[in-house]
Amino acid sequence: METIFFPESVAIFGISNSPANQGRVIAENLDRFGFAGTIYLVGSRAGVLGKRQIFAGADAIPGVPELAVILIPAGGLIQTLEACGKKGIGNIVIETAGFSEFSEERKGLEKEILRVASQYDMKIVGPNCVGIVNVENGLALPFYPLFPHEIKKGPVSIISQSGGLVHDIMVLCNIENIGMNKMVSIGNKLVCDENDVLEYLISDPATGMIGLYLENIRDGRRFMDLAASTDKPIVLLKSNRSPGSKEIARFHTSALAGDDLVVDKAMKQAGVHRVQNLREMVDSFKAFSLPPPKGPRLAVIARSGGHAVLSADSAYFHGLRLASLSGQFFDMLSEKTRAGVIRRTNPIDLGDVFDFNVYFEITGSALRDQNVDAVLIIHSYALDVDFEPSKQFISDCRGLSERYGKPIVFCTIAHKDDRLALQGATGFPLFTHVDDALAAFSKALEHSGRQARPSPERVDTGRHGKRQGAPSRLSPGITPTDEVFNLLKEYGLSVADYRVVADIDEGLKAARDIGFPVALKTASTRILHKTEMGGVMLGIPDEASLERAFRSMEAGPYLLQKMASPGCEVIIGGRNDPEFGPVILCGLGGIFVEIYKDIEIRVAPIDERTAGEMIAGLGSAAILKGFRGKKGYDVDYLAGILVNVSRLLSEHSEIRTLDINPLVLFEEGGGGVVVDAKLETG
Amino acid sequence: METIFFPESVAIFGISNSPANQGRVIAENLDRFGFAGTIYLVGSRAGVLGKRQIFAGADAIPGVPELAVILIPAGGLIQTLEACGKKGIGNIVIETAGFSEFSEERKGLEKEILRVASQYDMKIVGPNCVGIVNVENGLALPFYPLFPHEIKKGPVSIISQSGGLVHDIMVLCNIENIGMNKMVSIGNKLVCDENDVLEYLISDPATGMIGLYLENIRDGRRFMDLAASTDKPIVLLKSNRSPGSKEIARFHTSALAGDDLVVDKAMKQAGVHRVQNLREMVDSFKAFSLPPPKGPRLAVIARSGGHAVLSADSAYFHGLRLASLSGQFFDMLSEKTRAGVIRRTNPIDLGDVFDFNVYFEITGSALRDQNVDAVLIIHSYALDVDFEPSKQFISDCRGLSERYGKPIVFCTIAHKDDRLALQGATGFPLFTHVDDALAAFSKALEHSGRQARPSPERVDTGRHGKRQGAPSRLSPGITPTDEVFNLLKEYGLSVADYRVVADIDEGLKAARDIGFPVALKTASTRILHKTEMGGVMLGIPDEASLERAFRSMEAGPYLLQKMASPGCEVIIGGRNDPEFGPVILCGLGGIFVEIYKDIEIRVAPIDERTAGEMIAGLGSAAILKGFRGKKGYDVDYLAGILVNVSRLLSEHSEIRTLDINPLVLFEEGGGGVVVDAKLETG
Repeated sequence: METIFFPESVAIFGISNSPANQGRVIAENLDRFGFAGTIYLVGSRAGVLGKRQIFAGADAIPGVPELAVILIPAGGLIQTLEACGKKGIGNIVIETAGFSEFSEERKGLEKEILRVASQYDMKIVGPNCVGIVNVENGLALPFYPLFPHEIKKGPVSIISQSGGLVHDIMVLCNIENIGMNKMVSIGNKLVCDENDVLEYLISDPATGMIGLYLENIRDGRRFMDLAASTDKPIVLLKSNRSPGSKEIARFHTSALAGDDLVVDKAMKQAGVHRVQNLREMVDSFKAFSLPPPKGPRLAVIARSGGHAVLSADSAYFHGLRLASLSGQFFDMLSEKTRAGVIRRTNPIDLGDVFDFNVYFEITGSALRDQNVDAVLIIHSYALDVDFEPSKQFISDCRGLSERYGKPIVFCTIAHKDDRLALQGATGFPLFTHVDDALAAFSKALEHSGRQARPSPERVDTGRHGKRQGAPSRLSPGITPTDEVFNLLKEYGLSVADYRVVADIDEGLKAARDIGFPVALKTASTRILHKTEMGGVMLGIPDEASLERAFRSMEAGPYLLQKMASPGCEVIIGGRNDPEFGPVILCGLGGIFVEIYKDIEIRVAPIDERTAGEMIAGLGSAAILKGFRGKKGYDVDYLAGILVNVSRLLSEHSEIRTLDINPLVLFEEGGGGVVVDAKLETG
Repeated sequence: METIFFPESVAIFGISNSPANQGRVIAENLDRFGFAGTIYLVGSRAGVLGKRQIFAGADAIPGVPELAVILIPAGGLIQTLEACGKKGIGNIVIETAGFSEFSEERKGLEKEILRVASQYDMKIVGPNCVGIVNVENGLALPFYPLFPHEIKKGPVSIISQSGGLVHDIMVLCNIENIGMNKMVSIGNKLVCDENDVLEYLISDPATGMIGLYLENIRDGRRFMDLAASTDKPIVLLKSNRSPGSKEIARFHTSALAGDDLVVDKAMKQAGVHRVQNLREMVDSFKAFSLPPPKGPRLAVIARSGGHAVLSADSAYFHGLRLASLSGQFFDMLSEKTRAGVIRRTNPIDLGDVFDFNVYFEITGSALRDQNVDAVLIIHSYALDVDFEPSKQFISDCRGLSERYGKPIVFCTIAHKDDRLALQGATGFPLFTHVDDALAAFSKALEHSGRQARPSPERVDTGRHGKRQGAPSRLSPGITPTDEVFNLLKEYGLSVADYRVVADIDEGLKAARDIGFPVALKTASTRILHKTEMGGVMLGIPDEASLERAFRSMEAGPYLLQKMASPGCEVIIGGRNDPEFGPVILCGLGGIFVEIYKDIEIRVAPIDERTAGEMIAGLGSAAILKGFRGKKGYDVDYLAGILVNVSRLLSEHSEIRTLDINPLVLFEEGGGGVVVDAKLETG
């Protein structure tokens, strides 16, 4: 992708002399940003625009441009693309809109683009996008006007499925004095998708952190792999979460909706920081620009008691801790301030101390304190008198933070222009609201504490071993119960002893064999919900009862099964997510799942650590681990089973849904048995 | 309180010629804000400051000022206060700090203040506060500098337990162009508390909405009564929610921490809008300044597809709905825009329509549509070209919103200065982030839909009747179980048939009387946790077993009880909250309460509607109402019982905790019985 970001020459297709012509804006942007490469203007007829010639079509261009930007009506697109191919232009940005995001019929046009791209081996960004902004070389391709003084150079790069949001993110970062590097609008991501750009940005030395706006995720597993491969913070705003928005998103950039909970958990697995809106994204960029915090222990310095109280609340709710400051620190505090005015507590309420030198001393001492991981300053700001000393103080804080390698989260509610001026003058990130600042800070803390998780495809299933050779594919549709049981046994699960029988006689024989009490179930694949259809009879104590049970049920085949001993009923499920592929879920049966929706879900396969986290993440974990003096259940066994089932799901991508319900889990050391399971492929 | 806000004359105590003197700042503030009343400066020695004389003490003042502002060290306070009393000054603002918020010992000083206040019948605001700002008459009493051009006149009044936050709220409102009216810093609220000020502001015609910052609530019931008595929106930021912040808050303004969940539910009962931070408070003020929405149906107009998708998500998560726009609306849309460019969907993605006249037409049509309750506009803003037309468009929106009496929630991410300039020029509230805007809007919707709830003290307990005469007070300590049962029966609850017996013989006789199976419990009040102490034996089937049970238990008295039929085990509890008095809680027994903390709580007494809401608010409501084809339990009976227990709690404020656990609830129409209950007074 290097050439797409650093082309020697750019041809802009779609230039005319009309004042409303949007192609001209692209040329103006390139000029304003001092793009040093050659710029070719291409239109439907030859002419002149400013100091540049307009060439009539690709053939007329004197050389071979390294990049073509196309902004012509959709109708003429294929012809132009073909011409680019013949000319030998290998990198294309298609900004034109009106494809699958607009109507189903236009999908044919997208197929045509793919055909031409493949024929000429083209890299294409778009269609339906605003292209690329590369601050490093002035490549500014959007068709809306941009100005260099509105974009500061820095470490933040952006990938966005919406061109409008690229613009808004640039505006917000400019307001907050956040430096930008490369912005890519991927539009309908027909050829290059978020993963292609992400891979490039991860390897790009100028990019320090990456923000994404996505409406769907093309290949969730590759995305997770990429994210796990880098230490650069990745911040994701993923929309298309509500039933209503899915319709819109489909029209917008043809997004197919995934399940939002899966996205949430998958991003946690991969160490990606998910945000809910642009405010949180921008706040995260600020937090990530500070030295990475090594722990959750905050020293809070406030000029107002109200903010001290609010900060303590906010720290608590964001999972942070108030540091126990040393006696040495408080001695210094008493010495530097009028004796008796400031209490020896954290948060430190500066009360009526109005001395910036003291603020500086306190901040430095707090940073030096070995019980402190970060300092939060809430700087109440008075008009007029505070500007110059505040500027100095913030600059000093920047220095202190760098010197001690600890973050200072600096919040100030300053007057209109002053806050922006302070931020501009000091180059230090300023927050307004403590609550927002600590939400962002907790992401930075999470990031610095994260242990990069192996991506699911490369997960170590450890002692549970890998299969030799490819597994056989299951036949389509609903799999017969005994086949499902065999598959589960293949992956190391125990199944309550059972026989498939055709009639009463076989049934009686089998029951004598495995011993009473037994359960009798229909084994017909036509009946999916056995219980509702009268196809399950439990706890049959003897032969007479078994005979009656056979007579009350529809024709065979039947499944006769040993009743499991009492234990804790666990549900383990799996399904194929459109964005992330096989996912595994678990929870306790009955009200836990049905009333409290108490489940955990992960992208499969998982390792034992992740399995343990799934179990611990359940609201009902207390029951599994032993509750009110009761002995706990065999949680280690369950973790192993989750790993195995996750491997089963990964190795059988043809499984649409798997529902092990229930697995009866026995007390510690007792293992567990599967009692029933359903599986559907396709 | 009228005189405190509108005094004819003000005396400032604590003036000196020192340049660091803070009292002078007050005089400067009054002058800058054009306060037209007489200003007296009072110091420890006579002198001159600017054009004004400094009087040496209260006696030296020529007239009797209507208001005194005191900012002298705590040591000399009582003497000055006495002097004010003798002089006949009835209204005092004490800004001096260093009382109970600083140390326990200083509480004595507060008692002295109370003594003097009572002796001279003084109204006192503070101590430990920054006083009052009244924009109407220029009464600006804080000891930090304020400037009239930084405070716009308008409908928002503020009550704050932190003087620093008063300042920050004024700054934020100024940035957002929100008009302010009266700000009161109540400090340690020794005499005048939040309720006194709230009562005044509710009656104040110039105040349209009220924001509060509180660290504790002095009298929760009066607060609820006041809030329920007005249609003015009340927005509360209540801190002191985390274990850590309670320590700070006590030092700050001597707040005693209440239980945060009680505050949450009490505010919902009273129709007060609780916010988590100042950002949400300021956003709420903006939303409340729009015409009140009549319903949740939004028409969303976005200039970018990304924002359209994000808006749909945000609307969904804030409980709003996307309006079904009429065919007529879409016909107009097709006509006004180039055919085929805009899809007939809501959100409306304006795509490449760059015509402000069209925006205006669409907005007007959407407001006229009878399926639309409000319009959300996300105005992506391009630098340079968009300022003038945006200004016109926003002003037009203001006009449209007023004409149709429907809110327009206007969001725009504009460049640094432009957004503030647009807001200033149009006087229309602008939001930045859709998510924040809709969070605020949902509060406005809730407010316009709220049915003012009668305050708890005046609740109609309906068919459950009121007691004749005052109830007898319970004796201190743990109440014997049979007394608790009698009390519950007095309030209409059924208790499983029981006898208190002294020994085996009495027990056998009683068991024959009420019938087996029975339960045997110790009736000793020394044993609070009966089950854990082996003091409960359930399901005793016959006389022989009962004899064995007696022998295995400690000495009497015993409680012999008929075993209840199976049903759903409900817990009903009560306790005395330090801020809100008696509160009632309920939930299902066992894992529901213990694992999922699934309880509902309200300030008592409650009416049947509130009781119904409590039941419906439980996560486990589905079980009570009938789950997976099972018949439901007697929810109507339970609601009645909750009303009765809430009345019991209200009429017995000496109850510290009441724990009815369990009440066995039977199927619909079957009522329920109390099986066990504990009660402690004091």
